[in-house]
Amino acid sequence: MTSSCIFCKIVDGRIPCYQVYEDVETLAFLDIHPWSLGHTLIIPKKHFATLDVCPPKTMAAIARAMPKIAQAIMAATETTAFNVLNNNRREAGQLVDHIHFHIVPRVADDRIFSHGPQGEYAENQAEALARAIQAGIK
Amino acid sequence: MTSSCIFCKIVDGRIPCYQVYEDVETLAFLDIHPWSLGHTLIIPKKHFATLDVCPPKTMAAIARAMPKIAQAIMAATETTAFNVLNNNRREAGQLVDHIHFHIVPRVADDRIFSHGPQGEYAENQAEALARAIQAGIK
Repeated sequence: MTSSCIFCKIVDGRIPCYQVYEDVETLAFLDIHPWSLGHTLIIPKKHFATLDVCPPKTMAAIARAMPKIAQAIMAATETTAFNVLNNNRREAGQLVDHIHFHIVPRVADDRIFSHGPQGEYAENQAEALARAIQAGIK
Repeated sequence: MTSSCIFCKIVDGRIPCYQVYEDVETLAFLDIHPWSLGHTLIIPKKHFATLDVCPPKTMAAIARAMPKIAQAIMAATETTAFNVLNNNRREAGQLVDHIHFHIVPRVADDRIFSHGPQGEYAENQAEALARAIQAGIK
């Protein structure tokens, strides 16, 4: 727990939330500024700033809870489509420095998300990059 | 494996990929139409269409691999920020019906993703919705 983290305060009960799920390691609650009805955040109870520094065991706990939470959100909101989104660091849109996954129900043409154009790799560029990433996995 | 699924064909070796990671249950490779340099997809080797029907055990395996893959992507692309995105069903932007997680490196002002306005819940709406979701978790 870090004393200034809003999500740690929610875990700790010092700030209220609209809780939808809890287990030993994870907590899920409604985003109070939702992109769509039922927009939910899943977090580990323990504080980790970003995904890359989150222990694999904690990542696994969060991920195991996702299917049943997503099913319940879809049932309650009468939707079938959804995104799972996790932002790491400011350049990627992270606003609270406690790892969290958004589950965002979607309907046709809601225009909640859009993305820029997709690129192409130059000849041999993809192969060299894949090798560099592969070589860097610890 | 489903015979027409492009990701099953990649797992099976019938279609090549720029592989960056592999373990018993998961495979990661470069997206060949990248939103940014190093844009990577992580998939389970076994075919599941969407997250809500993916077994918790498989979700855990994917999630455990994410931190080390993200670290290696950032090192190879000299970035520090990234998104993890998973789209489920057409309305949410899913194009290949084999669950996959995008890891997308980000830099400041790259405008890769944008999203619509955030809403507000009416009085009591959030509480009722949270209860409905919580009641639906199996």
